[in-house]
Amino acid sequence: MDFAPDDTAREITARARVFLDEHVLPAEPVLEEQLAAAPGEWSPRPIVRELQERARAQGLWNLFLPGDQGAGLSNLQYAPVAEVTGWSPRLAPAAFNCAAPDTGNMEVLNDFGTPEQKEQWLGPLLRADIRSAFCMTEPDAASSDATNIGTRIRRDGDDYVITGRKWWSTGAMNPDAAIFILMGKTDPDADRHRQQSMVLVPRDTPGVRIVRPLTVFGYDDRDHGGHAEIAFEDVRVPATNLIGAEGAGFAIAQARLGPGRIHHCMRAIGMGERALALTVARANQRHGFGRSLAEQPVIREWAAEARIQLEALRLLVLKTAWLMDTVGNRQAMTEIQAIKIAVPRAVQTIIDRAIQVHGGAGVSSDTPLAELYAGIRSLRIADGPDEVHLSSLGRSVLRA
Amino acid sequence: MDFAPDDTAREITARARVFLDEHVLPAEPVLEEQLAAAPGEWSPRPIVRELQERARAQGLWNLFLPGDQGAGLSNLQYAPVAEVTGWSPRLAPAAFNCAAPDTGNMEVLNDFGTPEQKEQWLGPLLRADIRSAFCMTEPDAASSDATNIGTRIRRDGDDYVITGRKWWSTGAMNPDAAIFILMGKTDPDADRHRQQSMVLVPRDTPGVRIVRPLTVFGYDDRDHGGHAEIAFEDVRVPATNLIGAEGAGFAIAQARLGPGRIHHCMRAIGMGERALALTVARANQRHGFGRSLAEQPVIREWAAEARIQLEALRLLVLKTAWLMDTVGNRQAMTEIQAIKIAVPRAVQTIIDRAIQVHGGAGVSSDTPLAELYAGIRSLRIADGPDEVHLSSLGRSVLRA
Amino acid sequence: MDFAPDDTAREITARARVFLDEHVLPAEPVLEEQLAAAPGEWSPRPIVRELQERARAQGLWNLFLPGDQGAGLSNLQYAPVAEVTGWSPRLAPAAFNCAAPDTGNMEVLNDFGTPEQKEQWLGPLLRADIRSAFCMTEPDAASSDATNIGTRIRRDGDDYVITGRKWWSTGAMNPDAAIFILMGKTDPDADRHRQQSMVLVPRDTPGVRIVRPLTVFGYDDRDHGGHAEIAFEDVRVPATNLIGAEGAGFAIAQARLGPGRIHHCMRAIGMGERALALTVARANQRHGFGRSLAEQPVIREWAAEARIQLEALRLLVLKTAWLMDTVGNRQAMTEIQAIKIAVPRAVQTIIDRAIQVHGGAGVSSDTPLAELYAGIRSLRIADGPDEVHLSSLGRSVLRA
Amino acid sequence: MDFAPDDTAREITARARVFLDEHVLPAEPVLEEQLAAAPGEWSPRPIVRELQERARAQGLWNLFLPGDQGAGLSNLQYAPVAEVTGWSPRLAPAAFNCAAPDTGNMEVLNDFGTPEQKEQWLGPLLRADIRSAFCMTEPDAASSDATNIGTRIRRDGDDYVITGRKWWSTGAMNPDAAIFILMGKTDPDADRHRQQSMVLVPRDTPGVRIVRPLTVFGYDDRDHGGHAEIAFEDVRVPATNLIGAEGAGFAIAQARLGPGRIHHCMRAIGMGERALALTVARANQRHGFGRSLAEQPVIREWAAEARIQLEALRLLVLKTAWLMDTVGNRQAMTEIQAIKIAVPRAVQTIIDRAIQVHGGAGVSSDTPLAELYAGIRSLRIADGPDEVHLSSLGRSVLRA
Repeated sequence: MDFAPDDTAREITARARVFLDEHVLPAEPVLEEQLAAAPGEWSPRPIVRELQERARAQGLWNLFLPGDQGAGLSNLQYAPVAEVTGWSPRLAPAAFNCAAPDTGNMEVLNDFGTPEQKEQWLGPLLRADIRSAFCMTEPDAASSDATNIGTRIRRDGDDYVITGRKWWSTGAMNPDAAIFILMGKTDPDADRHRQQSMVLVPRDTPGVRIVRPLTVFGYDDRDHGGHAEIAFEDVRVPATNLIGAEGAGFAIAQARLGPGRIHHCMRAIGMGERALALTVARANQRHGFGRSLAEQPVIREWAAEARIQLEALRLLVLKTAWLMDTVGNRQAMTEIQAIKIAVPRAVQTIIDRAIQVHGGAGVSSDTPLAELYAGIRSLRIADGPDEVHLSSLGRSVLRA
Repeated sequence: MDFAPDDTAREITARARVFLDEHVLPAEPVLEEQLAAAPGEWSPRPIVRELQERARAQGLWNLFLPGDQGAGLSNLQYAPVAEVTGWSPRLAPAAFNCAAPDTGNMEVLNDFGTPEQKEQWLGPLLRADIRSAFCMTEPDAASSDATNIGTRIRRDGDDYVITGRKWWSTGAMNPDAAIFILMGKTDPDADRHRQQSMVLVPRDTPGVRIVRPLTVFGYDDRDHGGHAEIAFEDVRVPATNLIGAEGAGFAIAQARLGPGRIHHCMRAIGMGERALALTVARANQRHGFGRSLAEQPVIREWAAEARIQLEALRLLVLKTAWLMDTVGNRQAMTEIQAIKIAVPRAVQTIIDRAIQVHGGAGVSSDTPLAELYAGIRSLRIADGPDEVHLSSLGRSVLRA
Repeated sequence: MDFAPDDTAREITARARVFLDEHVLPAEPVLEEQLAAAPGEWSPRPIVRELQERARAQGLWNLFLPGDQGAGLSNLQYAPVAEVTGWSPRLAPAAFNCAAPDTGNMEVLNDFGTPEQKEQWLGPLLRADIRSAFCMTEPDAASSDATNIGTRIRRDGDDYVITGRKWWSTGAMNPDAAIFILMGKTDPDADRHRQQSMVLVPRDTPGVRIVRPLTVFGYDDRDHGGHAEIAFEDVRVPATNLIGAEGAGFAIAQARLGPGRIHHCMRAIGMGERALALTVARANQRHGFGRSLAEQPVIREWAAEARIQLEALRLLVLKTAWLMDTVGNRQAMTEIQAIKIAVPRAVQTIIDRAIQVHGGAGVSSDTPLAELYAGIRSLRIADGPDEVHLSSLGRSVLRA
Repeated sequence: MDFAPDDTAREITARARVFLDEHVLPAEPVLEEQLAAAPGEWSPRPIVRELQERARAQGLWNLFLPGDQGAGLSNLQYAPVAEVTGWSPRLAPAAFNCAAPDTGNMEVLNDFGTPEQKEQWLGPLLRADIRSAFCMTEPDAASSDATNIGTRIRRDGDDYVITGRKWWSTGAMNPDAAIFILMGKTDPDADRHRQQSMVLVPRDTPGVRIVRPLTVFGYDDRDHGGHAEIAFEDVRVPATNLIGAEGAGFAIAQARLGPGRIHHCMRAIGMGERALALTVARANQRHGFGRSLAEQPVIREWAAEARIQLEALRLLVLKTAWLMDTVGNRQAMTEIQAIKIAVPRAVQTIIDRAIQVHGGAGVSSDTPLAELYAGIRSLRIADGPDEVHLSSLGRSVLRA
């Protein structure tokens, strides 16, 4: 139960932090300008590519991926790096080629892909030559219950034919997102968790129709490819595009979730740290009723609560990472569920209070806070709402 | 302490409700289309004018304004109408010419304006020929402390010369907003609450520079004229543009606040009711894990809590309105402060839970919820953050 | 919807308040001494009888009971009187002969009793010659679900024979509690809500065995007769002791609940007011770190929150009383449920914070706060836990 | 940052756990009987002595004390043992001679006592031949502000003469509490934190008067010597009874606090675990509305929340222990403050919900829950209320 970063983790985290301070944070206003300069455009802005080249040159690249293909870090080693990237979620994860949903998709290809699939899609993703999307959630189904999935994948000779509608396909508005991993049902009559399969669907396949972008509290998240609603209308792909076996979709999705959640949670800790840092700065600079905000007891209380929460939850996330590394993702399920519930909502409160400390600037785009809020709020819905996880975790706690 | 709507209130509220159901709610998607059709445009969309004409023809017009100039309703009579308009804050208040900040500005002109000021500005506002803005908050000052105001209004012969910077001037991006009421300091050395004055600044006065629009979360609130940052650079207006006397600015602002707060709170109750109505509909339609959301205990708990809060707080708002009508705004200060604190945060929780019930649809623009959230969240900052009001109210409670 | 106290209510409430200040509050330390003087004794202390005589002489007597037998007050008229008694729950309700469970028992006898039952038991109760208990809750059943009741009432010739075990029979440790109203099942095979009946069981009936007193936190509530666990071992009573008809027990219990809940809630408001009054006094008297507690923002925040909650919830309770008076208890079920949920927990928070303001004195017997806390905390369990009511209220809210 | 228990800690904790299960938990009803058998008696009950003898024989003795005199455990090693004792706070700490305030008093004597003081008082305490009390808090002063202390310690020749009044002297009602460590002011004009000194006051010194016992939510805590109010009326002790130097009282108190707080927090975690274990048992055994409580979503939610909180806070406490061991108590001040704030309130919620799950049994003495509640609630007042610590922690967080 030693959570301390080892030498490798410490060294990489330190370099990531320097990179963040020297390159990423100063790039935020640049991104803002580049976004404003071409408001209708969904392609990544030049600053992202610049940061990627610089990061890759420094070896700050694919850090999320264990094994030969990536940086070979354990979850516990990667966790503090992920926290650093949470300080600037619009730029840092992409800069390090560690942005969702590409990370999860690369993991899936790495763990379950055929050699051909890896060559065709994993290679370009690892080089950031292309981006990807994950097509799982559907507008007409509660996505926390996989048996609700309505998209059908029919075998037809040497092909699969896909029919269905997906939304919240993050990144899919970006034309560089060349490959979609799609979850659908190959056998609706199979056992509950054997009905689903995953297939690779190239973006340019006939029948794939990007319906519209979705917004999150008014944000289109254009910087990382937005969120698309996509219609799949008799989309035909070769049978070799199947990932793993037929009926393995649910298991692959579960395997994808564990690391995804810990990455989300560590980034969320970083988001909370940034919100707290902004609070500290603002509270010392701003005055009202004859004293600085830093002298107002309610601000002190909020700062203390934020610090307590961040410390306790970071430890819980690190313990989870350590468990995943030592006993495996499955054995760490309780902890993964616990952090999935506890971290986003705590960070949401920290960000919300930071907004309150900033007043009008907090809800506007003059600080990153409102956008951080929108992001963290959505996390409490994505991958199943908090309430489903609470109920599931509670059931296992109550098992006598 | 009879809060029941009298016949007048009941009749007008019923008609407002019919108007909402028949004209306003169906107009929401129309507004959306008209906004999308001209994304760069700050002018009001045609649908707003259409609704206004229809409402005016039905006498659903200027209902907020007591006395001859308006509909002559008391606060207690107007309150349930305001609640109705809260169901569609983007359209209903404007449709009835009861939208902030015009309402407050019209009240100020009505109560403190000279005959000339009334003729020139109040008349067109009452007819909705023009719109207006209120320039009070500043980027560099905690606006809850009026002594922090940095904008200067210097007397120079028969003119006033204004220098300063304002932001969160709601509605000011709309080119129809022809007149600004500006708060600044005429005498920084006077007593704390006698330093400020208000002047009328026509939009087209030289030196008035609209710097930029501000966003609330990701929304630009284009439908009601956005929120502007405005620079006033040696802006010269005739001395007759002063409202009331020099040094009366703080008192006028206070007078403006009481009704404004009760309007906001009643609309907020309506927002909460809409969020609850959406929750009820969604919970009965959506299924997961073998039963409807309406059968999930956590959703039941949220619905029950929402109903309890809305009932209790509506009564508190009605009592406040009744007090304002019977003993006056000043005597109702404690209650006004109480509802200012209690209503927005309760409604925020109701909306947030409605979002959670809707999942991805809740944070997107497929429901009005995320935008309602952004609006209600901002209310907790506008006119002084909750914390300032809590502290002030607490001080008077603790006065032994 | 006029909640204002009418002349009658105003006059009686004013006199009750004077009585509280002049006689009841000064009697609290006397009660404490009389309790300490005979620690093992469950009989009422002399001070209670003294207060009763004085109150009765002033006509402050049986105010809870509508109709000829009582003071003839409506729920709306009685509500502010009940609030006054909440300031001193150990003494004031008993002083006015308005203490639970006698109030509910008298209502049951008044509404459902035969002339003989009234003469034998209601008369002495109205004169406070005897006290009573209500035997409903059982140790082995979740009492919020009436079908769980295990106590059996078998007809045997002209008698009923009762077997079962009850607990939380409040007041039953007091030897003056001469009559018990017991709820049991006469027909376990009948419809869900027709299985239960109520019978009168005189305390001295053979087979009635007081097993032990129960404590609430560390309090034995000796001052109002404690809470007993009672075994009923083949207890035989004449069939004329049945209240109403066989199978009517559930309906009678429901009828008993409505007024009981509103009384509890109004008293709870009074408890909250007392806690707030103690907070105000303490905060102005106590100093730390160079200023009075009343100048500490956190205390101000608590005081403000308390005032807001008490105002809003009092209105909700008054509206409920008004509904009960005008449309009947059944039509007011939603509101009765709402206040049953909302009031005790809000008052619990107010009392808890008052404890915090008082520090060590708050948890000790030097203030009434810890005992008030124990009482209000228990209210959230009695008559069904909050969660059952929330779920039930939510179900009706969600009914599309 | 390795928090895992090492072999020593694992072995001792395992034995402590076995001892708890085999001897302490079964002794709880015995204690109850022995308390009931002699209700007026403040001496420890025989069962405590029995457990002590058995524990001492097994080497489960003085585990809290580092160094030669104790078991030589580090904070990190002792922490899980302290958690075990939290399962039965009335018996387990005493059984292992690890009960407050003796632990803190022994630490003070061990660290700051003269050889004579150690021989006279530390030896008997380590053997549990006597007990002790700590006289710090005063009825007339906010004890979180040490400059408020009113008790005076005047030098008079070779003696000190003490005048003042203390309360919440835990354990002092027990006649075996032979020695009191008293904090008072030797020099009210010295620097803020140099005014106070500590002296040893034998219980039987003339002028020491036990005024009365205090209760905590109705509990007199008789099992561990209660809480006394004590008058010190011209109490004369030899100058050699001074602990450390004159003016060192504040520093010694601070030194005493660190370990005390971590012990309290670890025990609190144990209290929370017991409440959760009781919840699990009850929820599986109790039924209502056709299913077990364990199937009710709200109970699941509570169980999940409890597990999350206990996991996260245990890690924070362990990290604090580890910091104390590695960088020292002073460097761990932020963390010590954080756990002092966060742990008791989280455990309070867990216990409160466990009470709710148990219904009437929860507030009574049929479960340990209500008494655990009273204990944990008091912790949020003792050693300075939460609010003082929040403000202090916040100040350091906001230090730019």
